[in-house]
Amino acid sequence: MIELITAGESHGKGLFGILRGIPCGLKIDTDFVNGMLALRQRGFGRGERMKIEKDRINIVSGIDENGVSTGSPIGFFIDNIDTKLNATKRSFTVPRPGHADFAGSVKYNFKNLAMPSERTSGRLSALDVAAGSIAALFLREFGVKVYFAVECIGKTCAFAKDLSEDTFEKVLSSDILAMGKEAEMKAEIENAVKSEDTIGGRGLAIVRNLPAGLGDYNDWRNRADGLVAQAVMSVGTVKSVSIGESGITSGAIYHDPFEMKNGTLKRLSNNAGGIEGGITNGEDVVVRFFSKPIPTVRRGIPSVDIKNGKNTRSVYVRSDTCVVPAVTLVSAMRIALVFASLLTEKFGGETMSDIRASFNNYINSRRAFWQK
Amino acid sequence: MIELITAGESHGKGLFGILRGIPCGLKIDTDFVNGMLALRQRGFGRGERMKIEKDRINIVSGIDENGVSTGSPIGFFIDNIDTKLNATKRSFTVPRPGHADFAGSVKYNFKNLAMPSERTSGRLSALDVAAGSIAALFLREFGVKVYFAVECIGKTCAFAKDLSEDTFEKVLSSDILAMGKEAEMKAEIENAVKSEDTIGGRGLAIVRNLPAGLGDYNDWRNRADGLVAQAVMSVGTVKSVSIGESGITSGAIYHDPFEMKNGTLKRLSNNAGGIEGGITNGEDVVVRFFSKPIPTVRRGIPSVDIKNGKNTRSVYVRSDTCVVPAVTLVSAMRIALVFASLLTEKFGGETMSDIRASFNNYINSRRAFWQK
Amino acid sequence: MIELITAGESHGKGLFGILRGIPCGLKIDTDFVNGMLALRQRGFGRGERMKIEKDRINIVSGIDENGVSTGSPIGFFIDNIDTKLNATKRSFTVPRPGHADFAGSVKYNFKNLAMPSERTSGRLSALDVAAGSIAALFLREFGVKVYFAVECIGKTCAFAKDLSEDTFEKVLSSDILAMGKEAEMKAEIENAVKSEDTIGGRGLAIVRNLPAGLGDYNDWRNRADGLVAQAVMSVGTVKSVSIGESGITSGAIYHDPFEMKNGTLKRLSNNAGGIEGGITNGEDVVVRFFSKPIPTVRRGIPSVDIKNGKNTRSVYVRSDTCVVPAVTLVSAMRIALVFASLLTEKFGGETMSDIRASFNNYINSRRAFWQK
Amino acid sequence: MIELITAGESHGKGLFGILRGIPCGLKIDTDFVNGMLALRQRGFGRGERMKIEKDRINIVSGIDENGVSTGSPIGFFIDNIDTKLNATKRSFTVPRPGHADFAGSVKYNFKNLAMPSERTSGRLSALDVAAGSIAALFLREFGVKVYFAVECIGKTCAFAKDLSEDTFEKVLSSDILAMGKEAEMKAEIENAVKSEDTIGGRGLAIVRNLPAGLGDYNDWRNRADGLVAQAVMSVGTVKSVSIGESGITSGAIYHDPFEMKNGTLKRLSNNAGGIEGGITNGEDVVVRFFSKPIPTVRRGIPSVDIKNGKNTRSVYVRSDTCVVPAVTLVSAMRIALVFASLLTEKFGGETMSDIRASFNNYINSRRAFWQK
Repeated sequence: MIELITAGESHGKGLFGILRGIPCGLKIDTDFVNGMLALRQRGFGRGERMKIEKDRINIVSGIDENGVSTGSPIGFFIDNIDTKLNATKRSFTVPRPGHADFAGSVKYNFKNLAMPSERTSGRLSALDVAAGSIAALFLREFGVKVYFAVECIGKTCAFAKDLSEDTFEKVLSSDILAMGKEAEMKAEIENAVKSEDTIGGRGLAIVRNLPAGLGDYNDWRNRADGLVAQAVMSVGTVKSVSIGESGITSGAIYHDPFEMKNGTLKRLSNNAGGIEGGITNGEDVVVRFFSKPIPTVRRGIPSVDIKNGKNTRSVYVRSDTCVVPAVTLVSAMRIALVFASLLTEKFGGETMSDIRASFNNYINSRRAFWQK
Repeated sequence: MIELITAGESHGKGLFGILRGIPCGLKIDTDFVNGMLALRQRGFGRGERMKIEKDRINIVSGIDENGVSTGSPIGFFIDNIDTKLNATKRSFTVPRPGHADFAGSVKYNFKNLAMPSERTSGRLSALDVAAGSIAALFLREFGVKVYFAVECIGKTCAFAKDLSEDTFEKVLSSDILAMGKEAEMKAEIENAVKSEDTIGGRGLAIVRNLPAGLGDYNDWRNRADGLVAQAVMSVGTVKSVSIGESGITSGAIYHDPFEMKNGTLKRLSNNAGGIEGGITNGEDVVVRFFSKPIPTVRRGIPSVDIKNGKNTRSVYVRSDTCVVPAVTLVSAMRIALVFASLLTEKFGGETMSDIRASFNNYINSRRAFWQK
Repeated sequence: MIELITAGESHGKGLFGILRGIPCGLKIDTDFVNGMLALRQRGFGRGERMKIEKDRINIVSGIDENGVSTGSPIGFFIDNIDTKLNATKRSFTVPRPGHADFAGSVKYNFKNLAMPSERTSGRLSALDVAAGSIAALFLREFGVKVYFAVECIGKTCAFAKDLSEDTFEKVLSSDILAMGKEAEMKAEIENAVKSEDTIGGRGLAIVRNLPAGLGDYNDWRNRADGLVAQAVMSVGTVKSVSIGESGITSGAIYHDPFEMKNGTLKRLSNNAGGIEGGITNGEDVVVRFFSKPIPTVRRGIPSVDIKNGKNTRSVYVRSDTCVVPAVTLVSAMRIALVFASLLTEKFGGETMSDIRASFNNYINSRRAFWQK
Repeated sequence: MIELITAGESHGKGLFGILRGIPCGLKIDTDFVNGMLALRQRGFGRGERMKIEKDRINIVSGIDENGVSTGSPIGFFIDNIDTKLNATKRSFTVPRPGHADFAGSVKYNFKNLAMPSERTSGRLSALDVAAGSIAALFLREFGVKVYFAVECIGKTCAFAKDLSEDTFEKVLSSDILAMGKEAEMKAEIENAVKSEDTIGGRGLAIVRNLPAGLGDYNDWRNRADGLVAQAVMSVGTVKSVSIGESGITSGAIYHDPFEMKNGTLKRLSNNAGGIEGGITNGEDVVVRFFSKPIPTVRRGIPSVDIKNGKNTRSVYVRSDTCVVPAVTLVSAMRIALVFASLLTEKFGGETMSDIRASFNNYINSRRAFWQK
């Protein structure tokens, strides 16, 4: 099992992660991790803070002098430069709708309703990106690739028919990780800024080259689809997750035919989105999600001062206008963590070479299923 | 924590569940449970088996002579009457697209591709319904109600504006748990039967009267939204889950204003679907899900005989045409399990009266948040 | 992970277990399991109930028509014949010292202090023996053997210098699983019967041929020594657990020298008891434990009637005089579960042949550590 | 649940802990924590390193500006000053018997056998002490006290009849936390130093004032005795754990009579060591453990060079002579973590005042069990 445990607050001393279960012998390419951290911060429609912070991973344990994992927990920090806006210094009593201000303060009986935002802030997702990109490095050792793209911002959507590596390479060069229509999407964001509003949208993540057989149907808690849904739905702004197609209602059309062609088994479509019976089937795992517009609307939202019960408007705290690109990356990195974990559970082994041997044995012993 | 552990196969000796964590002192109303089991079997568009099985819960441990829980694991069985179609007696080598036949057999190296269906069959969901309805009984002790309805079958959808108890009472009297347009929905099913197809749709589950404060933002694995998404996405045919609204992209419109009225705090909308920051906020938890059409299409789907690599069509095994009503119930019962578990985690206590005391103390000590 | 989940009460409808994680492809030899169940019941110094019950495992799921595991949860029952003495029928209010009567009733607020004994009864250990013997069958596939013997009853102890397979074979033919001095040990039991007392003692369990490398030092919850200690200390009457030697206090004497002899690495002693740094080191895992005398003393023990606060003596409920042999078997079977679980975690794989491949690859790739 | 997750190596950049589950509203007295850290380092018979390191906790998250917990994970660091002896800089190929050198290197396929010691070093136990002393602060809020003392060093033992608070206060003023016979115990250590040996011994931990009802008998993994045994047996040098008495074999003598005296229920002895049926019974929880002599014997132990198979002696790496006092403290702090966790599980609540209300309600509602 691979698992990320976190500590740290948005405006506290920093963000801290312990990543457990990374097998011994994986070279941790910190440039790759830092590249992903930079990607999270990038973008059109982001607020001031993105200019303040330059996130870099600082690994303090679990690697040797060559940056290779030792099998021990990988401890890492990401510094906070901006610690001035700490909740304790900006106490308020008017809950911002859409934030955890109200629900979290009821839970913990906070008088200062700013408290929950220290742990629910999008800033914390830097930890997911750091850990998830290490998971992605691990998956890459088995030929598995993780792709992602923004498909919609506001009402503007762009879907690619061709989901090739090239397509996703191009996405990386987009300011907003757009699959297309970048200009229109940016215009949506600019309009939101002008109207002192925020804007939501939709993202896509694909995991390619996973072996068939990850996840299990014997317990709902081990199904790959459920684990993916949990990982993505619990990203701060996500309100909807789908795997594969969720519009087609005819069984004859929905289900993906098998065909044997030149000695190799193929699927003629991938409406299942790579998971059948809670288990990966060897096709692309295709996950889509809706990110609500972030709640920190500049013009405020009607709210109530909990201290005295008076109707008022929520206060504005410096924020972004559109986080759909960041949420898309974060979701993809969470999914990388899920599949890296499932892979270690299935193939066991505590060193990369043990896992490779076990992985290769599996592929070879199952080959008759897809090759003749 | 409340947790269901299951054993048993679709055509084996029976279905077996162990439900752990139900506090001591809950009267288990087996009529209620059996009513829910009957509801799962009901319906238009169901296959032969529904007529064969008359599911009833048989509790064998964890209750005293009055049917009151003792705090010990509740063991229960549901008989299988139809054991003739056991996988071992209907071996096949042509995977049915949409089933776990292929992915599961690759995983476990089964030569008989019927094997995975013994555990992935919809029949197993009777265990979820039995356990979930006990969870619903537990929740009811705290005033929490679980509602559900089918909103779409095929292209026919009916949404209720009024989500009152009455509306959901009426749903229960519908053959297909429809929120409305029952005749059109049935026509959709009949058309599917005629065209030897199957048909999918959409369901709704609502949990009402949950206290604010369940779930936690400090670890993604404890967020209520993630747990709900996992529980529902891992229901056999579900491919999409949403909580609250997933269409609105303007922050000014999306987020639900607070208003103090006659001394009581109100939300003017519930686009958040009752969860903010991964924590219940006191509003209705509103969950929607898409159920794919079941894969056992009578006319078959192109497939391949894994034994010899020849292209062919999938075999038809007796099945239903439309399971959207059952999937809706099952999803709602899974959600009941999630919230019953979160409630015991928050309020601790191992007896109903301890939990009630702890629950009441919480409500009273937080009242200043919503009452003036 | 291999895990046993249980339900059922001592005098209820029966005992129910769900054993999760047994890989696909293991032949479950029920004769072996039933032999172990009979061994648990055997013996000198046991009470009436042992003559009433003839425990046999009844597997209801997770195996195919040849008794081979399918990878799905193995559900099983063991019938209770004696259900007359159910707690609800023998209510009392005077706690028996040494039983869970008092602590358990405080916890669950039971007015009938007999309630906790339904789950804490030694009878429940039949489930551990059934599951543990399946784990032992699994371990046997990798050449791992689980041995056990009673070393002391009362003040009479017999330790074998020679811990060969032969020694443990002979133990099996002893009525009380004695390592030696059977007659004196039986005399101790007879004396206890005569004086209306009960008698405790000590047991030994050995797991032989485990590969080096099971368990992990990176988290205390994954250390093999801690897991063994938990599994054994939580057997009903056990109050002390040791691994290897716990008397020697000189480091120069305690630690087990390595020696290379004829190209093979050897340890010259095994004071570590097969575990160093929480990890198996390839030597015998040697576990010893003390079983307190069971608390149901015929002549009663001073106690108090909780109903009215009057001083009195505890009531006698039919029971055994000496359970050390049964506790020894149960502890050994729990330890089998622990190592079977660690083995599946390390070598992954969900089929026996996958695990064998992964296991063999490991042994071969590590051979240079112990062979030249 | 309260849980400590750790990262960091003995000679790496530092030690890092994330303590999850501490409720909101606990004042973290860092002086108390630092006092305990100093106690761990203290002592006669400790090596050079104790003079180099001055451990202090550095909390970086989960507390507010007043040092009060916020309910979020408490992240903390303890610096390593000595990083020169890092495993990567002192590579060796001769395993030291008693260390994880061999077993750990087989597991992870390390060529440098120094690698496992970076995580198995006693230094890591500073994290347990830091987290455990926060747990002890939490327990203190409910009147629960954690005491500890060394009972034996080598063959010299001192047991106190009087286990009053005073006795344990005096223990704190002993260089070696001795219960008595301090001079003789120190002489044992001096002799070990002279003979280039190391020396083991025995420790005692007591948890006083725990309410009856913690832990559960329904699942072996939830029993308080098993959890304590796991926590203590997995301390680096511990090889034996007992709870209460483990020598008495007569049931009539072993079990602790109840007596009602002046309207209050009393036990006339505490051979059970505070736990019956896996549940606390309201008496002192009494845990004893044997710490083997540490393996780093100055004169070396026969071993083998794994590189070339030649017989040789193990290398000496700077170390302590006697760690029994430190192990005693560490074990007690682990036990504090176990009971703090069980208390939060039983009484739920995420704030100190919620837990207090729930705790008080429990005590009041159960009073009839022990008061008339």
